Amino acid sequence: MKIIKSKQALSLKRTVESGTDEQQRVVEEILQGVKERKDEALLDYTERFDGVRLSRLIVTGEELDQAYDTFDPELRDILEEAARNITSFHEEQKRQSWFKTTPDGSVLGQKIQPIESVGVYVPGGTAAYPSSVFMNVIPAKVAGVKRIVMVSPPNENGDLPDGVLVAAKIAGVTEIYKVGGAQGIGALAYGTETIEPVDKITGPGNIYVALAKRAVYGDVDIDMIAGPSEIVVLADDTAVASEVAADLLSQAEHDTRACSILVTTSEKLAFRVQEEVESQLTRLPRESIARKAIRDHGAIYVVTSIEEGVDVIDELAPEHLEVMTEDAFSVAMKVRNAGAIFIGRYSSEPVGDYFAGPNHVLPTNGTARFSSPLNVDDFVKKSSIIQYSEKALKDHYQKIAAFARLEGLEAHARAVESRFREDGE
Amino acid sequence: MKIIKSKQALSLKRTVESGTDEQQRVVEEILQGVKERKDEALLDYTERFDGVRLSRLIVTGEELDQAYDTFDPELRDILEEAARNITSFHEEQKRQSWFKTTPDGSVLGQKIQPIESVGVYVPGGTAAYPSSVFMNVIPAKVAGVKRIVMVSPPNENGDLPDGVLVAAKIAGVTEIYKVGGAQGIGALAYGTETIEPVDKITGPGNIYVALAKRAVYGDVDIDMIAGPSEIVVLADDTAVASEVAADLLSQAEHDTRACSILVTTSEKLAFRVQEEVESQLTRLPRESIARKAIRDHGAIYVVTSIEEGVDVIDELAPEHLEVMTEDAFSVAMKVRNAGAIFIGRYSSEPVGDYFAGPNHVLPTNGTARFSSPLNVDDFVKKSSIIQYSEKALKDHYQKIAAFARLEGLEAHARAVESRFREDGE
Repeated sequence: MKIIKSKQALSLKRTVESGTDEQQRVVEEILQGVKERKDEALLDYTERFDGVRLSRLIVTGEELDQAYDTFDPELRDILEEAARNITSFHEEQKRQSWFKTTPDGSVLGQKIQPIESVGVYVPGGTAAYPSSVFMNVIPAKVAGVKRIVMVSPPNENGDLPDGVLVAAKIAGVTEIYKVGGAQGIGALAYGTETIEPVDKITGPGNIYVALAKRAVYGDVDIDMIAGPSEIVVLADDTAVASEVAADLLSQAEHDTRACSILVTTSEKLAFRVQEEVESQLTRLPRESIARKAIRDHGAIYVVTSIEEGVDVIDELAPEHLEVMTEDAFSVAMKVRNAGAIFIGRYSSEPVGDYFAGPNHVLPTNGTARFSSPLNVDDFVKKSSIIQYSEKALKDHYQKIAAFARLEGLEAHARAVESRFREDGE
Repeated sequence: MKIIKSKQALSLKRTVESGTDEQQRVVEEILQGVKERKDEALLDYTERFDGVRLSRLIVTGEELDQAYDTFDPELRDILEEAARNITSFHEEQKRQSWFKTTPDGSVLGQKIQPIESVGVYVPGGTAAYPSSVFMNVIPAKVAGVKRIVMVSPPNENGDLPDGVLVAAKIAGVTEIYKVGGAQGIGALAYGTETIEPVDKITGPGNIYVALAKRAVYGDVDIDMIAGPSEIVVLADDTAVASEVAADLLSQAEHDTRACSILVTTSEKLAFRVQEEVESQLTRLPRESIARKAIRDHGAIYVVTSIEEGVDVIDELAPEHLEVMTEDAFSVAMKVRNAGAIFIGRYSSEPVGDYFAGPNHVLPTNGTARFSSPLNVDDFVKKSSIIQYSEKALKDHYQKIAAFARLEGLEAHARAVESRFREDGE
């Protein structure tokens, strides 16, 4: 892990994969296929890409119960405890509709309602990610979304991983279908005989899934297209090198494009972390991925003060920030741009990935300057409420008409005036 | 205005202008020009597109004061009253950071902070839109955004309209530059010698502005790309035909692609509104625009009950909904999908465009199913806060490690375990 001398070398902005023309073409063809041939297309693409001809797409209640009943009870308890924590944290985010009344009898407000239906994409492949099910489904559930549809590609036996099914049952998914890739996204956006379309699609996926989400955006809403994972640790000489290194590596093992950066006031810590990273790397099962990530996107930057460190953080706007300094809470409160802030020695980043409660779907690529973790607000919509009383309109319609005419919009002026025309109707 | 028999003929989904290849090429060239030649490029493009060679881009305090001091005092008072109403409505939306503590001494929460800097695009052309300045700037101001930069194309004399300048001063814009089009967006996104870049860009514009906003998205955040205006009126026989017609026309005058729909339980009202629209149309200064909009995108649909009417509304998910029925408030509360709901006879739609307080930047094209009016939340970002205590991590790290291993992420497990290694450091 290199120690760098200039902060100009530090950046989290990496090119977001935009897909090749060929990938783009494939996705368009698949989406068109789903629009035209619906279920039949889903079954065909699943056979082609996942290697299994399904007799039905839906996961039945029995399949779900069986996965749940046969799952390691200890692990199941852990999943349930995590789900409770995540639910509890997101409950705090719920907002009520509100109204205010004015002395002239008018009512103004915001009606806040859940989105009607949400689709959650869960990637397939070797590893199953129950945590991803929780982090996408639970905020929607807490928001009050009635219909939460999960789609995920089946394995060659036509099954979904037990861990994912168990998480779906715990989180309260209402329908599960065995369909992945661009065809899964197409089904959620356009609907088929079996799958009713949804209003919003969230969840991570490969490049085909990302391209499909982008293509259906507008017909439905989507969440952000996330980039590779990032961790920045801000530390002084009170931090423990082995722990800093372990946390940096926890993100590096995700992806060769993952980014791990240490910003520190302590040159001694810098060198010790450098050694620790090297030594811990050799013992990791995913060593080759993590090693490449650390080599290409890892850096240690020594600053002269914590204040300078905070400035560097704000410029980076990292997805995950750990603050391991003296008076860490106060330091953390000075930070303006970060998706999630882990404070103190005992807030190792995986605490937030799995268990504590806050969401692990976070802004990447420096977008924490203007974006937020996935949250309950992402699953509601607001409608403005305007009920003007007769008195209110009478008192103000001439002003409104004058304002409209200032903008050259005569029909707007006449609309408010129409209520008080002398000649009546 | 045609009376239609099937709700299948009703739709607010229209193709969003995506721009020609040529327009796309022009926008890319302009953005590249701004990146490379900065201020010089802005001055060149302004000369080319707006017909004026400026000596400086910034609007000075003196220019602003002069516009304000020489503005019609009565109109200025109206603008100030409108700004107060808009501020007051948006103040209600403000949210505080929050924390909760657990018995084991951990702290979890959301830190909610304003985005640092926002750019607001204000279109030029014949009409000036002070209301657009208010609706974009005030929510940002209320959110606590420190730097609010306005850009707008100058006229041939190198000036911006007084109404826009006065609105900018009232709303509290912190910097104003005379630059429009794709070059204005490029300046806000990338910065020049004169203009510091911003974190988010909002505000409407022509196709070049829309394409430029889409191109810079990711480097900065943007608001939605709005479609043409829409109004749907839900009315029974208690509604006054001339007023319904006037409100339908108030949106039709915006744009030949604007959409005006009446959904009513009263066949009598349907015919009377049809007559009234025709008769009021002939007296409108923007008759030709409104007539084309009504012809191409206007419709009256007769339903058998208010409940059926509400279902039609929810499928349409209109930008503006007016409810003019008996017990209008209760009917409005049943609606799930609408950007802004105007309730009762005295809540003519322009009340919300200019004066009442709620935002007039609203979801179009049926996106009210999942999108909201522009609001204070659009100008803040949230950071998750996680401070686990030693006890909390000690109690839970084995569960977290087990969860991580279920997902095949060993380095995640080791990160939480590293705090309790027997061998210490």
